[in-house]
Amino acid sequence: MESSSSTERVRFRTQVLARHLHQHVPSQSQSQSLRPSTCLSYSPPELSEPFDFDTKAMRKLMDGHNLEDRDWLFGLMVQSNLFCPKERGGKVFVTPDYNQTMEQQREMTMKRIGYLLDRGVFQGWLTKTGPEAELRKFAFLDVMGIFDHSLSVKLGVHFFLWGGAIQFFGTKRHHEKWLRDSENYVIKGCFAMTELGHGSNVRGIETVTTYDSNTEEFVINTPCESAQKYWIGGAANHATHTIVFSQLNMNGNSQGVHAFIAQIRDTDGNVCPNIRVADCGHKIGLNGVDNGRIWFDNVRVPRENLLNSVADVSPDGQYLSAIKNPDQRFAAFLAPLTSGRVTIAVSSIYTSKIGLAIAIRYALSRRAFSMSPNGPEVLLLDYPSHQRRLLPLLAKTYAMSFAANYLKMLYVRRTPETNKTIHIVSSAFKASLTWHNMRTLQECREACGGQGLKSENHVGHLKSEYDVQSTFEGDNNVLMQQVSKALLAEFVAAKKKNKPFAGLGLEHMNKACPVIPSQLTSSTLRGVHFQTDIFCLRERDLLHRFAAEVSQHQVQGESKEYAFIVSYQLAEDLGKAFSDRAILQTFIEAEETVSAGPLKNILGLLRTTYALITMEEDAAFLRYGFLSRENAAAVRKETGKLCSELRPHALALVSSFGIPDAFLSPIAFNWVAANSWSSVQD
Amino acid sequence: MESSSSTERVRFRTQVLARHLHQHVPSQSQSQSLRPSTCLSYSPPELSEPFDFDTKAMRKLMDGHNLEDRDWLFGLMVQSNLFCPKERGGKVFVTPDYNQTMEQQREMTMKRIGYLLDRGVFQGWLTKTGPEAELRKFAFLDVMGIFDHSLSVKLGVHFFLWGGAIQFFGTKRHHEKWLRDSENYVIKGCFAMTELGHGSNVRGIETVTTYDSNTEEFVINTPCESAQKYWIGGAANHATHTIVFSQLNMNGNSQGVHAFIAQIRDTDGNVCPNIRVADCGHKIGLNGVDNGRIWFDNVRVPRENLLNSVADVSPDGQYLSAIKNPDQRFAAFLAPLTSGRVTIAVSSIYTSKIGLAIAIRYALSRRAFSMSPNGPEVLLLDYPSHQRRLLPLLAKTYAMSFAANYLKMLYVRRTPETNKTIHIVSSAFKASLTWHNMRTLQECREACGGQGLKSENHVGHLKSEYDVQSTFEGDNNVLMQQVSKALLAEFVAAKKKNKPFAGLGLEHMNKACPVIPSQLTSSTLRGVHFQTDIFCLRERDLLHRFAAEVSQHQVQGESKEYAFIVSYQLAEDLGKAFSDRAILQTFIEAEETVSAGPLKNILGLLRTTYALITMEEDAAFLRYGFLSRENAAAVRKETGKLCSELRPHALALVSSFGIPDAFLSPIAFNWVAANSWSSVQD
Repeated sequence: MESSSSTERVRFRTQVLARHLHQHVPSQSQSQSLRPSTCLSYSPPELSEPFDFDTKAMRKLMDGHNLEDRDWLFGLMVQSNLFCPKERGGKVFVTPDYNQTMEQQREMTMKRIGYLLDRGVFQGWLTKTGPEAELRKFAFLDVMGIFDHSLSVKLGVHFFLWGGAIQFFGTKRHHEKWLRDSENYVIKGCFAMTELGHGSNVRGIETVTTYDSNTEEFVINTPCESAQKYWIGGAANHATHTIVFSQLNMNGNSQGVHAFIAQIRDTDGNVCPNIRVADCGHKIGLNGVDNGRIWFDNVRVPRENLLNSVADVSPDGQYLSAIKNPDQRFAAFLAPLTSGRVTIAVSSIYTSKIGLAIAIRYALSRRAFSMSPNGPEVLLLDYPSHQRRLLPLLAKTYAMSFAANYLKMLYVRRTPETNKTIHIVSSAFKASLTWHNMRTLQECREACGGQGLKSENHVGHLKSEYDVQSTFEGDNNVLMQQVSKALLAEFVAAKKKNKPFAGLGLEHMNKACPVIPSQLTSSTLRGVHFQTDIFCLRERDLLHRFAAEVSQHQVQGESKEYAFIVSYQLAEDLGKAFSDRAILQTFIEAEETVSAGPLKNILGLLRTTYALITMEEDAAFLRYGFLSRENAAAVRKETGKLCSELRPHALALVSSFGIPDAFLSPIAFNWVAANSWSSVQD
Repeated sequence: MESSSSTERVRFRTQVLARHLHQHVPSQSQSQSLRPSTCLSYSPPELSEPFDFDTKAMRKLMDGHNLEDRDWLFGLMVQSNLFCPKERGGKVFVTPDYNQTMEQQREMTMKRIGYLLDRGVFQGWLTKTGPEAELRKFAFLDVMGIFDHSLSVKLGVHFFLWGGAIQFFGTKRHHEKWLRDSENYVIKGCFAMTELGHGSNVRGIETVTTYDSNTEEFVINTPCESAQKYWIGGAANHATHTIVFSQLNMNGNSQGVHAFIAQIRDTDGNVCPNIRVADCGHKIGLNGVDNGRIWFDNVRVPRENLLNSVADVSPDGQYLSAIKNPDQRFAAFLAPLTSGRVTIAVSSIYTSKIGLAIAIRYALSRRAFSMSPNGPEVLLLDYPSHQRRLLPLLAKTYAMSFAANYLKMLYVRRTPETNKTIHIVSSAFKASLTWHNMRTLQECREACGGQGLKSENHVGHLKSEYDVQSTFEGDNNVLMQQVSKALLAEFVAAKKKNKPFAGLGLEHMNKACPVIPSQLTSSTLRGVHFQTDIFCLRERDLLHRFAAEVSQHQVQGESKEYAFIVSYQLAEDLGKAFSDRAILQTFIEAEETVSAGPLKNILGLLRTTYALITMEEDAAFLRYGFLSRENAAAVRKETGKLCSELRPHALALVSSFGIPDAFLSPIAFNWVAANSWSSVQD
């Protein structure tokens, strides 16, 4: 509707008003209390909802980069029958057919990749480097994920895991040999890290590789059932090659986990000798990805297939590494893989946007019950309780969208010095954003009632597709504990060296402890100053408490590991506090780039809603006394007000997501027409 | 394992201990910090976990009734190939094949029903009445739902909705004509209440029925697209008849919603004239149920097809009803339908049991990370954080299981006097129990990591199957608001008449307000007295606050409806407080039936965990000051202790659920063998 001229809008609005007036004349002949309502008709919310800020500028701020590329790719998908365009209620929607079997869905994913490959979508994905090329790749991945998670995961495995491993763990010889063919999909790669027996704990994997200096080959072996590679995307059907993670055993000494390239299928798709492959089977979602299992029976690969950026083996079998400590070697080795957590965090927020765009548009066209006996039925989004269900999630999605952009930029501009920050921030944001996404989708599906259960309406189905994000690339709870561990290490180092905190946004710890006013007014609550103060206070206090608890356990003679494990409650509180404060900071930074006006005003409203809802939802604010009972009551009252202030902007805010109508779903638009008898005949 | 003799167990345990000792000898030749772990092998938790109470007695307490009938039906299902038995890791599991298309799943559901019908499972479901017959029916429905939600929903629609409507809304003439053929599945019924435009708000439906006294027929019509019947289970493929809910328009006067019987298909399955049917399409779960849509084009049905328990039309077209007020007529009409909410609440708790049995068994056999550099990896359930994720949910499931039993008994022993109580308690419990179930399944799926995503492992897939429960038979949030409205009505009536509260467990309101000690010790926290006091205090205080807020709005000249709508936050807090207190009460009552001993002790531990976790999770305890910060800290500390006290009983507690192994899933048992290469060949 952004494009419709104001004259057109006035004309539409007049027509609609006339229709409303006509409908609302009560028929006096009928029993007053049980009069059946007049037949429903769909009225596009664009005709009655205001657009008080520039939604295009907002979209630019949210998407951040490569807007034209994104729109080009959206267009490319809508044009092809491979993306299953279907007309519903006068609009075309694209979405995979989830009534297909797993096998059919997998074939469709490959066909879609083939189509996009032919149109040059993946050009430069592995052969070009630098922030610009990486951002373009990220933008395309965002867009493909909006269509289907299987599509983006299947591509993610091939380009980011297989391709990324060669780029980051490999050296020139690997780059020259493998990257071009991979970019052209002549080689189809997968990434065999996880095993049946070991997921999060990669160091515990049981696959063993030895070196045979006679033939200058590595020999990769699966010594037992729990060592079988598991969940390997691409392994079940399509991949020709894999990265294998394995313990490297040199002359009886384990050198820890290393990565090798191995071929698993020939060009005709037949499984290679000494390789066994099995299917992981049907999953609750992502059935367009062929996850499989791999056993290696003393598979021999050339010495050159060791990805040797960190360590190498000489032809005569000498193990060489600049990093002597195997723990550090392991860490250096995995560091570049944070791209996985970056893309997960980013895609989870795009998914929340889809869910909210659908649920909010539906709530602006669906009515239920009336406030007075003969009054008209009320729009769902005009119920304060419905606002309270959806609008805080909308504000959080905005906040986390800025956080996702920040993380993306941190990643593409990475240097060896930013590795630690990327690791910690990506862990925290991956956990926060994917938890938020699952919660948002659940609320959106329920807010759509039964319609939320129809696969074609997308919002309910997305839950099954994205559930995996809470545990892959690290269980969210474990990640949050790691964040707190890292913060504690910073804390201990700063105290020990008596140096100020630097990095990770912890500089506020160097200042005096913020003081929260004993009586919070509405204007204080809405200020950046108060919001920053209380988020910092919470982080600082929890970090002190966590440090004290861990040290208390250690004083009692317990190991550091044990001390961490039993202090899990504070660790989780602290991890959230870090993450929430960092998200708020990215919001404030994004806001600062906008000049005064309607756009800045609405951003302020969203930021305040994000901050206050976080305070209301996390009982830690009351539990540790960051908020007194009176102040907590003030926060609660204010969130209700904020919801009603956001209400008029709801449509404009979801329109700003920039997701084309075709990628939403029928209930987001004329769901009466979409369900009409005439549409059944099609 | 319950059945294994203690001699056998000792023998097993000795073998396992020997194996452990053997494994734990560290290999000195390997690098210390990165030594690959010895290959994993599965050790049945039964060999190391204690069984300190009588699990059979516990099961009896939990299932409550018809234990032998349940076991007979479990056995019947395992015997037939229709229930897809598959061997995994030396055990047989039954579960529908969710990789089938919607069409195939629907046919399988019908075949399973046919098999059970032939074996007499449904005998007496519609022709016998009384508590005993109803409990047998409930027990069978529990068991079938444990196999597959589609199966129990498809049967629920036919027997409870179609059959129940005829039993409750119909009179002798309907009972005689329809019940026997329905019980034998000669007639397949469905239940057409919901429309595209109206779900929760049944009074707003738009289908219109008029009476033609010339032919003594009713004429049922779908006047517009939004009046099409929607989500009608059975309508898309199999149903021959339906109950139609419709506005009854007599000589231009609307008499409100009434129910009629109409045939929609002939015996050959062809759709009848003037009926149009369409499919609701693929859903996120429940694809074994053929939900459809129905349009009525002036369909004529005999006058006798009006279900006339509350109102009738004479041959010459006189409208007759003993209840003059259409609002009351409507309420009387829908009252018996609460069976839907009863079965939903009950089945959601059985589903939580499945999820917990799987996740806890897995956590007792899966290890990750070690506490010390060379130590053995730690069982997931030995991590305090993992205990904190699962064990409070286990305690809540026990509590809610007693609540579900209470509700079931309330229903089967119903009298006209208990209708109000059943309505309110079933609304509250349906919301609480289904919310709990979705949350439990989500936590269980994540606690199983990637394995939680495989359909064959059940726990993840159940989420999609049961998601519908949060919104069908009333959106949970709306139900909770209705509960609070009803409580307020009690409150107002008691104040007005200056009479004591009676019923709904509100008698505590007649006593003095409980006082919470300023310092809560562990023994106070664990006492029934304190737990009851604080739950009653919360309910009482919130009811007063809610009454005050609503009345304040009314004083300001706002309508009662509007006052309710804006007081939604307190309404939701109060609804939860009522529900939690009522659940606690059912727990205490169940506990009282058990004599002193290990069983009673473990019940006390579970009840305390339920009570304390409820206090910790609901910020209302801090927000409204029922708990001071110090007391809240004491509660939090105690929950950690309770989790570690429950830990040794975890296996016995999930074994007490009485769900046969075959209805759990491979990861609950030997998942190493279930994933072995040899199992791939099968």
